[in-house]
Amino acid sequence: MQVFREVELEGHIIDSGIMTKVFDKIMDKGGNFEIIVFDVGKRKTDPSYARLRINADDDQQLAGILSEIHRYGAHLLEEKDVTVLPAEGNRIVPAGFYSSTHHPTSVRYHGRLIPVQHIKMDCLIVVDPLAMEARCTPLSKLKKGDLVVVGEEGVQVIPPERPRQVSNFEFMHGTVSPERPSETIIAKVAAEMLELKREGGKIALVGGPAIIHTGAAPALAAIIRKGYIDILFAGNALAVHDIEYNLYGTSLGMDLCTGKPVTGGHKNHLSAISEVMRSGSIRKAVEDGVITSGIMYECIRRDIPYVLAGSIRDDGPLPDVITDSMEAQDRMLELIPGCSMVLMVATLLHSVAVGNCLPSYVKTICVDINPSSLTKLMDRGTMHAIGVVSDAGTFLPFLEEQLEIQSREC
Amino acid sequence: MQVFREVELEGHIIDSGIMTKVFDKIMDKGGNFEIIVFDVGKRKTDPSYARLRINADDDQQLAGILSEIHRYGAHLLEEKDVTVLPAEGNRIVPAGFYSSTHHPTSVRYHGRLIPVQHIKMDCLIVVDPLAMEARCTPLSKLKKGDLVVVGEEGVQVIPPERPRQVSNFEFMHGTVSPERPSETIIAKVAAEMLELKREGGKIALVGGPAIIHTGAAPALAAIIRKGYIDILFAGNALAVHDIEYNLYGTSLGMDLCTGKPVTGGHKNHLSAISEVMRSGSIRKAVEDGVITSGIMYECIRRDIPYVLAGSIRDDGPLPDVITDSMEAQDRMLELIPGCSMVLMVATLLHSVAVGNCLPSYVKTICVDINPSSLTKLMDRGTMHAIGVVSDAGTFLPFLEEQLEIQSREC
Amino acid sequence: MQVFREVELEGHIIDSGIMTKVFDKIMDKGGNFEIIVFDVGKRKTDPSYARLRINADDDQQLAGILSEIHRYGAHLLEEKDVTVLPAEGNRIVPAGFYSSTHHPTSVRYHGRLIPVQHIKMDCLIVVDPLAMEARCTPLSKLKKGDLVVVGEEGVQVIPPERPRQVSNFEFMHGTVSPERPSETIIAKVAAEMLELKREGGKIALVGGPAIIHTGAAPALAAIIRKGYIDILFAGNALAVHDIEYNLYGTSLGMDLCTGKPVTGGHKNHLSAISEVMRSGSIRKAVEDGVITSGIMYECIRRDIPYVLAGSIRDDGPLPDVITDSMEAQDRMLELIPGCSMVLMVATLLHSVAVGNCLPSYVKTICVDINPSSLTKLMDRGTMHAIGVVSDAGTFLPFLEEQLEIQSREC
Amino acid sequence: MQVFREVELEGHIIDSGIMTKVFDKIMDKGGNFEIIVFDVGKRKTDPSYARLRINADDDQQLAGILSEIHRYGAHLLEEKDVTVLPAEGNRIVPAGFYSSTHHPTSVRYHGRLIPVQHIKMDCLIVVDPLAMEARCTPLSKLKKGDLVVVGEEGVQVIPPERPRQVSNFEFMHGTVSPERPSETIIAKVAAEMLELKREGGKIALVGGPAIIHTGAAPALAAIIRKGYIDILFAGNALAVHDIEYNLYGTSLGMDLCTGKPVTGGHKNHLSAISEVMRSGSIRKAVEDGVITSGIMYECIRRDIPYVLAGSIRDDGPLPDVITDSMEAQDRMLELIPGCSMVLMVATLLHSVAVGNCLPSYVKTICVDINPSSLTKLMDRGTMHAIGVVSDAGTFLPFLEEQLEIQSREC
Repeated sequence: MQVFREVELEGHIIDSGIMTKVFDKIMDKGGNFEIIVFDVGKRKTDPSYARLRINADDDQQLAGILSEIHRYGAHLLEEKDVTVLPAEGNRIVPAGFYSSTHHPTSVRYHGRLIPVQHIKMDCLIVVDPLAMEARCTPLSKLKKGDLVVVGEEGVQVIPPERPRQVSNFEFMHGTVSPERPSETIIAKVAAEMLELKREGGKIALVGGPAIIHTGAAPALAAIIRKGYIDILFAGNALAVHDIEYNLYGTSLGMDLCTGKPVTGGHKNHLSAISEVMRSGSIRKAVEDGVITSGIMYECIRRDIPYVLAGSIRDDGPLPDVITDSMEAQDRMLELIPGCSMVLMVATLLHSVAVGNCLPSYVKTICVDINPSSLTKLMDRGTMHAIGVVSDAGTFLPFLEEQLEIQSREC
Repeated sequence: MQVFREVELEGHIIDSGIMTKVFDKIMDKGGNFEIIVFDVGKRKTDPSYARLRINADDDQQLAGILSEIHRYGAHLLEEKDVTVLPAEGNRIVPAGFYSSTHHPTSVRYHGRLIPVQHIKMDCLIVVDPLAMEARCTPLSKLKKGDLVVVGEEGVQVIPPERPRQVSNFEFMHGTVSPERPSETIIAKVAAEMLELKREGGKIALVGGPAIIHTGAAPALAAIIRKGYIDILFAGNALAVHDIEYNLYGTSLGMDLCTGKPVTGGHKNHLSAISEVMRSGSIRKAVEDGVITSGIMYECIRRDIPYVLAGSIRDDGPLPDVITDSMEAQDRMLELIPGCSMVLMVATLLHSVAVGNCLPSYVKTICVDINPSSLTKLMDRGTMHAIGVVSDAGTFLPFLEEQLEIQSREC
Repeated sequence: MQVFREVELEGHIIDSGIMTKVFDKIMDKGGNFEIIVFDVGKRKTDPSYARLRINADDDQQLAGILSEIHRYGAHLLEEKDVTVLPAEGNRIVPAGFYSSTHHPTSVRYHGRLIPVQHIKMDCLIVVDPLAMEARCTPLSKLKKGDLVVVGEEGVQVIPPERPRQVSNFEFMHGTVSPERPSETIIAKVAAEMLELKREGGKIALVGGPAIIHTGAAPALAAIIRKGYIDILFAGNALAVHDIEYNLYGTSLGMDLCTGKPVTGGHKNHLSAISEVMRSGSIRKAVEDGVITSGIMYECIRRDIPYVLAGSIRDDGPLPDVITDSMEAQDRMLELIPGCSMVLMVATLLHSVAVGNCLPSYVKTICVDINPSSLTKLMDRGTMHAIGVVSDAGTFLPFLEEQLEIQSREC
Repeated sequence: MQVFREVELEGHIIDSGIMTKVFDKIMDKGGNFEIIVFDVGKRKTDPSYARLRINADDDQQLAGILSEIHRYGAHLLEEKDVTVLPAEGNRIVPAGFYSSTHHPTSVRYHGRLIPVQHIKMDCLIVVDPLAMEARCTPLSKLKKGDLVVVGEEGVQVIPPERPRQVSNFEFMHGTVSPERPSETIIAKVAAEMLELKREGGKIALVGGPAIIHTGAAPALAAIIRKGYIDILFAGNALAVHDIEYNLYGTSLGMDLCTGKPVTGGHKNHLSAISEVMRSGSIRKAVEDGVITSGIMYECIRRDIPYVLAGSIRDDGPLPDVITDSMEAQDRMLELIPGCSMVLMVATLLHSVAVGNCLPSYVKTICVDINPSSLTKLMDRGTMHAIGVVSDAGTFLPFLEEQLEIQSREC
């Protein structure tokens, strides 16, 4: 016994690949479709419109198909309200809960289309019936009684459409390869950063300790000093190594000017932490004149907010480190709104953490020496992502140089 | 001054993603399009038909667009003959030569549509006007006076359409990740091999020396003995290590039963080559009773053709090795036609060489411990490719076990 | 003006490579030496004794040399007490503090040689003058007034000597290569585990989520059920995926029996966490009959202690997760004493965390598909470490099989 | 029944680690030793002398031990002549043949100590009794009747001793890590190259096609133009991409200034080869004014010898490519003598091929984005090797800059 529902899609559904994905999903799930209406935009600037009849063998299969294609913006013809159910307890989801994408989303509630706030993938959508608001809520924040959206009906996703003009940013869209012209790519990243800053955009940096080990700390400090970075996400290690380098010229005991370990250098790591302890915080240590340069110094001087998230392998940690991972995550979520670009350099852990929290329209640039780390980051569905297989120790100095050259040209 | 041409596309152009790629390419190249006719197949089993008017700013831009979309099967409305020009000299191409894809292709010549033989990417198409035949010809084989197809006009490419039914093979289509259920994947590879052998298909194996180092030689030998492999592509090293293991139980001097180097084991490599020299060839060494088991032994016993291609890092090499790379390539090209599947294990060099010669409809399974090697292999446009991030030393024994279990079940 | 000091070394200082390292360090630091006494053990079972006069250009260079060679067991001829200084504040080190190695260490205090407890690298040694005890203290635990050892004088390190008999374990000592006989290595790991369990040893497992993604959860669960694992160190992800697999047959929505994503499967992750929330803890969920198999189930059933350490990328997390990284570290440090082997599978973060806490005599086996991760783990100075470049999805099933076969043989 | 032999060692056998390795090998092989004489150099500049009595259970074990320690320079007390046996046929070794190390070696023949020429590992040593010469002979060159050294007796190996002064070059001796200060390392490589050129040394470059893909061709061309490179080892691909870039600005069709593929760019590869064909050779194409810049251009202009070795994956190939791998190897072997440094950039195949042919005293610098490739290269026993985990596209421009800056300073 065949069952069916009609859905519609609109926008640049052909050239953005959405139509293809919808057809694919229907067939993957064993369904079938008929095209009822298909108004193709005659010119590349025109949007298209399609109405499809989805046929399935039974209600369950049909529901499965609708659930999948919903994520690409296909919505039922007859618009209905979302269904909401109260959470039975803290962190306990109602059956059939809706799990969010990272695309802009609205929910129809009491006949009104409400934009969902704080878009983030794999969250619940909780509706506030008084304020007539809806927001993405991580499971960890779900409270007993929260009204949770259930099923896809009434939820409308707006997946990103392919940019009409190929911007600087899209030039290497979606692929990862070490066989790219490195200097060209870095010049383009610089151009994109400059353009974004001219438009008043905010750029976050997610960085790993290899930035210091590879000798790129001065370059990154200069990039921060010149105002290109608005937020820093990192762990204890990046900050400790940066401060160790400022205090003693070493990173984990290796002299970065000679590449050789120095005598007793293995203690510098603990000494650096201890010196900050003595002052009480990184800010105090800067104010006390203990820390006089480097990445953390520039962040303090420019009042750039940072999250140093604790991890189980930390030494110390520094007093600024948020050792509770959920608190660190909350602080990260507070800082992300408003970011238009995230530059991720040489850290998989923090990059995945930040990447999971980004709406799909935030541009991301991922730099790592290991192509597999990039593939893992790019796989997470970010549309505007560039993966650069390179060495932080050469990438950041080149980037700083390019920012300098190109900013003078403007 | 705007210029334009009309093209048409037909087949499963929507659900196979072809339509999207055509739209993309037009826009990437700065062109524009109008849809003149768009008959969408109403059901997923129906083909579609589209007629587009491509608009461009000048003839050069238009030619660029047509050249790109041609590769996805878009052809000019008014069918014309191909233009051919004679090669000026051996290995010298005429200006504007057509460079082949790895998709099935036909050329219109004297009003007749001729299928192009020996499909292989990045070749010239040479037409034989007497025999009314056309074939893909590598640059190395181009002779002075050969009639070479020039431009895209009259050439029709049939890109692979998405399979209507999701087969075993497509289950992990196109992605590479070490985070897959290994045993499940191996079971599916075995199922696909069994099905293909039942249908009379031919399977080629491309293998690297790590097969022996990781202790998988007995498993591969068993797979060959049981009739699953029809052709072997490898280098000198695989054969030498295999024979060393048979003669002395070592691979580059390491005892594979203990994992430890044996005394004087570093000589076994040269001794193994020398023993084959004494017999004159691997076949003779098998017939003389010198080689009594292993991969090469099973190939000889089952009369399985093999190509051992020489490389600059070879020791010896064995008398069976084809030291001239062009001769080895020719021999490889002779053996490939008729292959329906290629299993590539732990070798990038030989896998790329074979992959470059395969038509797009041949199924390929690539196994490597390094995800980057797989990405490189999968990037080459193979549609029916599975990449498995695994260790030859565990993959092949599991595969042998699965082939045994599943063949008994049938 | 030359300065000098005499040091002595004893034990298997030649064949364990200690002598070489001492000579190397002296020369690296620009010093010079004369051999005063050198009693070489005449037979390989005899210990050796050496007395060296270290010459340097000045006191600072001499101190640098002594500091370095001290770590290899070289100690000053004239035995003196350690110097201790009180910590100025919590987490604030006194100048010149001694930073521990991971080798067994003693300190001379009031003329008595006291063994240092809780050996762990990069810690302070705090002396308790009343109890006449000394212990390794991480910076995070240092309290104001603690008596901290300063300088190397009076500290004696006993670096591990090369085992007289080559055991199973040492067969591939210290190198990382994907080109090893996988099945042979796994058989040896199994043999070592069996021997260690017969001697009453404790084995800890450090595992990453790829264990579940690669389909190895049932194998690991069986290994735990059969009593080979005594402690589990992991993160939220391993436990969530394991429970998701038990509840829904999926891991991050992928059906592990088919390798394909299931409809709505992306919700299973949150549902799994939510189900445990409903019960209150993993233990309760097992007792409630919600969780009926898998890694966590076996841990609960066998009362195996586990640490699930929180990280910034966690969803949920499960109620059992210790979200504060310092608390998680403390719990880890409590469980480590008594471990004689640690098996690290497919996680760099947790493996480094655990590795940093291990004394040098604990055997470690590191398994990862990425050779670089292994190199990083092996670099940390572990003497008894084996690195296996393999896929968790095939390694663990093979290991389980080997444990089964070999335990029956005994 | 115990058997024994006495051996002696001399030189910097302690601080170069040789003594340790000898003791290790004796024990690995189950033997035992007594130290008869041990004159340790009193100062670090003094050589040492040791006489050991090796005890074993039987003759075979003793022979095994002697064979192993022989490679570290341990030789029998009573000096005897080498035994030689004629090769039974071309490429057929006599039983018990001696296989060479890559260390300087001499053989005692008719009472005279003859230095072995063309030192290269894994070769036979063939003695010419008339000329009283000995040379390393690859198996492929062994002719019937050649007098081949058999056993270790009479062969004396001089393993490299640790340099007395830590030079620039040794600063990161023997380890591979992406976590190094990139700019520091590159500056040191430049310093070493400059020093070596001042001393009249010859530097060979082994390069892969990624040099062009990553946009580093102009930097390498400049390094060659300035006289830092004396020999080039590469494959067809490096030369074709370099020439394609010179002729069309693309590498495999990608515009290196924009990072984007150009229309019809996939044909540039074949066109570039065809253009060289038209001229007849790369040299002719330079003389004809077809090729006007780039790596190959600079080689031709400076008369720098190059070997372009064919491989099975080649397109074309260029007329300059030596398609026979054994011929290419011969040409490589002709050029290597006299090289004092080899810079290996982004190619595993050619680097291994060259590395296998180098005596142990030639300095090698290996640059690759993949740490595993470096580990593989460094494992081959080269003593003076630096591995740099970096991106050719940033490494080479930085190196050129450093060579420029530092050469001006001198």
